[in-house]
Formats: sequence, C-alpha cells, structure tokens
Amino acid sequence: MNGFEQISPALVIGTGLVGASVGCAMTAKGVRVHLQDAVGAHAVVAAGRGAGTTQPVDRMEVKLVVVAVPPASIADVVAQALADYPNAAVTDVGSVKHAIAARLRGVTGVERYVGSHPMAGSALSGPLTAAAELFDDRTWVVTPSEASDGWAIDRVKAMVRTSGARMLIRSAVDHDRAVAEVSHLPQLMSSLTAAQLGQVPAEDLALAGQGVRDVTRIAGSDPDLWRQIVAGNAGHIRDQLVAVQADLARLIEHLDDPATVADLIARGQRGAAALPSRAGKNPKLFVAVSVAIPDAPGAMARLFSDMSELKINIEDVSIEHDPQRRAGYLILEVQPRQVDALRAMLRAKGWVHEPVGE
Amino acid sequence: MNGFEQISPALVIGTGLVGASVGCAMTAKGVRVHLQDAVGAHAVVAAGRGAGTTQPVDRMEVKLVVVAVPPASIADVVAQALADYPNAAVTDVGSVKHAIAARLRGVTGVERYVGSHPMAGSALSGPLTAAAELFDDRTWVVTPSEASDGWAIDRVKAMVRTSGARMLIRSAVDHDRAVAEVSHLPQLMSSLTAAQLGQVPAEDLALAGQGVRDVTRIAGSDPDLWRQIVAGNAGHIRDQLVAVQADLARLIEHLDDPATVADLIARGQRGAAALPSRAGKNPKLFVAVSVAIPDAPGAMARLFSDMSELKINIEDVSIEHDPQRRAGYLILEVQPRQVDALRAMLRAKGWVHEPVGE
Repeated sequence: MNGFEQISPALVIGTGLVGASVGCAMTAKGVRVHLQDAVGAHAVVAAGRGAGTTQPVDRMEVKLVVVAVPPASIADVVAQALADYPNAAVTDVGSVKHAIAARLRGVTGVERYVGSHPMAGSALSGPLTAAAELFDDRTWVVTPSEASDGWAIDRVKAMVRTSGARMLIRSAVDHDRAVAEVSHLPQLMSSLTAAQLGQVPAEDLALAGQGVRDVTRIAGSDPDLWRQIVAGNAGHIRDQLVAVQADLARLIEHLDDPATVADLIARGQRGAAALPSRAGKNPKLFVAVSVAIPDAPGAMARLFSDMSELKINIEDVSIEHDPQRRAGYLILEVQPRQVDALRAMLRAKGWVHEPVGE
Repeated sequence: MNGFEQISPALVIGTGLVGASVGCAMTAKGVRVHLQDAVGAHAVVAAGRGAGTTQPVDRMEVKLVVVAVPPASIADVVAQALADYPNAAVTDVGSVKHAIAARLRGVTGVERYVGSHPMAGSALSGPLTAAAELFDDRTWVVTPSEASDGWAIDRVKAMVRTSGARMLIRSAVDHDRAVAEVSHLPQLMSSLTAAQLGQVPAEDLALAGQGVRDVTRIAGSDPDLWRQIVAGNAGHIRDQLVAVQADLARLIEHLDDPATVADLIARGQRGAAALPSRAGKNPKLFVAVSVAIPDAPGAMARLFSDMSELKINIEDVSIEHDPQRRAGYLILEVQPRQVDALRAMLRAKGWVHEPVGE
C-alpha cells in the first residue's frame, strides 16, 4: 500500500467532482475509501467511477475524513466529523481556509483538523467526470495551524501524495491572501468587465476580438459558488479591490495625461510577466505561425503527420476563436530555429498559413 | 484586375505590419502599390514581402492613399496627403476614428477622407511578418462621415475588399464607442489586474492558475501604443471606466452581502454570454477531454493520426498552460456524440487522459 496504511480506511463526505476525485486517487493507491453524500445518488455514481464504496464504516476505525462540501457548509461538517470520528484526522478541500479555522477554534478535537486546497476542479460540479488524474501535477496547498497535531498533518500530507499533486505548505492566512490576489481578484475583475458588456448596444459586440474573450472567460463562473468564496475571504478580497479602486480612480482622474496611462500599461506588463512561466521553457522564445484548417475530419491529423515527418516539436498550439473567421485557424508555436523548416513544409504541402501579427 | 482599377495606383504611407499587409493584399489583387516610410528600410522590407514598390509615384495619378502611421501622427499625415495627392481618396487604419475626423474638419479636401479600422495586427509592429492573409475574415470597420464624397467611400470599400476582411460600416462615434466597450475597457481592466500582481509577495504567485493568466494576457500590450489610443478615445473610455468604478464601489460597499456578490457574478455571466460565438457553432455543446502529451517530437502527430482513424472531428484544441504540470496536456473538444468513441480509443491506444473539470 506504499505507506498509505495511515489513512486507510478514509471517509469522503461530499462526492462532487473534487471529493469523488480524491476518492479515486486514494482508492488507486490501495486506500479503503468510504463515500457519503447528502444526495445518495451522487455517492453511488462516485463509487461507480472508482472513488470507493458506499458501505457504512465503523466510526472508531476511520483514520482520515475528507470534507468536500460547498464552501458555506464546510465548517459545520468538519466540526461534526471531529465529533463523529474521534480517531480520524479531518481535512477539507475548500478554496478559502482562515474563516473555517476561525469558526473551528475551541471545538473539541480541533487539533485533528488540517485544512487543504487542491487548485483543481469546482466544488459544485458533479461526480460524473471524477478521476484520480484531476490532481496530476496541480498544486495542492496544505494549511496546518500551530494547534494541529503532527500525526494529523502527516495523514493529510499522505492524502495529497496519493493524488500526484504538487504540495505547498502555507498558513491559512497566507493561503487566503494569495488566492485573493491570484484568483479572487482576477475573477471579480473579469466579472466587472463582462457585466459592463451587458450594458452596451448589441451591435457593438460585433467588434469584439480575442482580447475581450480572454479577459471575460472566467466570468462564466457559477454565482452561487462565488458568493460563498467571497463571503469566506472578504477581508483579503476587500484589500485587493480597494487597491484597484485607488488605481482606477487615479487612471480616471489623469486619463488625459499620457504618462499616467503609459505607466499603468507598463506596470501591467511587468505584473503579467511576474507570473511564473511553464517550468524550463520561455514562451517568449517561440515563434507563432497560423495555419488555416478546413472544417473536416482528418485535416488536423494530416497537418500533424506532415509536421511529424520534419521532426518539428510543437511547443504550443491553440485555435483562434475569432467568430469572424470562416475557417478554423490553428496557431502553432515552435522554436525559432525550426520556423523556416515549418513554413517551407507548409508551403510545399499546400497549407494556407501566415505569421501571427497580434 | 477584378474591378480594383479605381484604386490603382495606391500609396501606402507607413509600412509597419498593418500598412505592409494592406500593400500585400492590394498587390495580390493586381493594384499597383507604392510604399513610403519615415524609416526607409521598413519600406524596402515591405517591398521584399510583396507589399509593393518603393519607386516614386506621380502625385497627380494616385487614386488612394492609405495612412498607416502611429495613432498620434495620423491626422497630420492625412492632412498632408490630402494636399499632396489632390486626386486621391485618403484613408487611415487607426484604432480610434472620431478624434481624427474632428482634427481634419475644415481641412481642404476633407471630403476625400474616409476613416477605416482593420481589427488585426498592431500599428507599431514591423513589416517583417506582413502578409495579405492578416485580414482574412477579420472585421474591417469603415467610418464615412456626412461630408465624405461617394466616390471616395467606394475606393476605401474597394481597398477593404482586396483584403478579404468582413466589412462593417459605422459612424466614427459609433465605432469609437464600440471599441471603448469591447477593446479599450477590457485592455485597461487587464492592465489594472496585472498591475496589482506586481504588488504581491512573489511566493503568492506560485498559486496562480489558468484564470489569472487569461485575464492578464493582453496586459502584455505596448505602453506607447496604448498611451496614444487612450488619448484618442478618452471620452468613451472615461464613460466605461466610470461605469465600472460605480460597480466596483458598490461591490466593495456590499462585499459582505452575498446577494450583491452573486448579482455581479450573474451579470458577468450574462455579459460574457452576449459576445457573439463562432458562426454556426455553439461551443457549449462540446465536451472537453484532456490528454497528456509526452514532450517529444511526433507525439501529437501520433495522437491526431489515432483520432483520424476514428473520423472524429476536433472542434477545438488547446494546450494547458498550468506551470505546475510536468507533462503538456492537450484539451480536445468534440461533439458529445463522439466523446465515448474518443475516450475508448484513447484508452485502447494507451493515452493518459481525463475529463476536463474546470
């Protein structure tokens, strides 16, 4: 069992996408996993996907409880689990951590609670698409407190190891500040931008290109989930929003001053560049070529087969989403030393292609 | 010459990416194109890419002048062109239109000026990657005024037709309002979000996922270009920013009220959904599957060849950018009726795959 005896049997409470996928990951590593869900059918579907069993478990035997319920219910369910399973470590998979820890302060058994947050999936999706691979190489943050027992921390870390996720250890406060910065603020800025689109004349939207689509993609998120996330992290989110509010007020006040505008764009350039890039690769070193793809089965296979003969490694690939283009355009990014060979091949094989100008 | 005699010979002033590409498009349709650039080498490179000739042209013969210089210089160069080429229609390719028209009011020959805006490329990129195909199926907005001569409008429309772009006719004011809404506001919101990332502890950025990367992609834009665009459209941009400012203030004030937060997210959902989707296809009808791609030449060719045997049409494809993943993951989107066949094939051929959970 690869050292996972310390968390077997485990109990997963809440078998949505994330809970069921945790079950799949632990089951795949030999852990005996029991499943519970307020909607019994969800637990049955999760079991059908290999997440564990819906058989009851002896409450004194359970070594780990994973609480994977919607954000607003987490603290209550964790408190109940600490009471019901006195020999278990208890964790949760919610995307906000400090508010839960604060609500559990003083609860009997709280030293057995260790929060965690896998940066994958959505708590409100169903178990139908659950899979152990959901966490492959994703980040999973574990947030022990000073009150946490060492053996409970070890059990939660063992659970993360079954998933293949990259583990980060943070305090609950540091975690919440970081997700406010890199997840919650971008979500709200995307929603503010998209909400404004709802106010404009419909014919103006015909001028929309790829930029606005990128900025507003995550605005499609679920209102009920985000209502709960924001409620759980309002302090850090307010800090972020107030900082942006000051920046926005400055921009509006000095909109006629070219230096202020250029300064904002330049600060944005630096901020975007500060995001860690894919390990070991610098995407700025790639050259992009756009190829027209006929809308028919087999066209992409033919293209990749043509490229394969050349032994060209495609570093990145994407399809242009511009609604005004009749054909699909595939953007291929390659090493600069390979771009001449790629373009010569595309020409020779009759592919319609062009450099990427934006 | 397919009816393009009315714009031959044409003169392109400014041979950056857009100007040189316009030259390529017109040349490809048989128009005689002359090229000028303040940097002589740019015109030579553009000519080398098939954009036209650097030979001088008889100023009385020129039938169309295309001004493709940086935004802040457009009005002056157009005014000079109206004087220098008395028998020509004059257009420009700047991304803001009303300020130019306003500055040209009363200029001799202004009835021969008709503004335009191809939604492609960047005015400040060089001619090295110019190509007629830059405009294929892109939108190109033409903005005649009440003062414009009919024959001048016809010549500018003929130029757009050489490019293959989808033509929209708008007033300069309607155009500027629309780009403020769908391009300039999203740009500034992306920059505001990214600028905030520059203020956060570096270790917090390790928690960044795909969402923040999408929102901040266009924050990488050029400060000098945007300084000029904002200066030319400050009125409409201010309207947009002030509307967002009010929405942001309301959000901050009522951040503890779940209904306000859910309302913003829901309005954002509706706004994002209002953007026109790709013609004839509804991306929401597709099912996404993620496949692990070994980082080696030929892997993608093998994958697409495997899919080709099944006659599965890939509706969309993208590579996951998550820096925490060691392998590349390709997201394939297919019709729901094809997903079972796709997954069965992937399993049979040994591809590591998973449903897409986010």
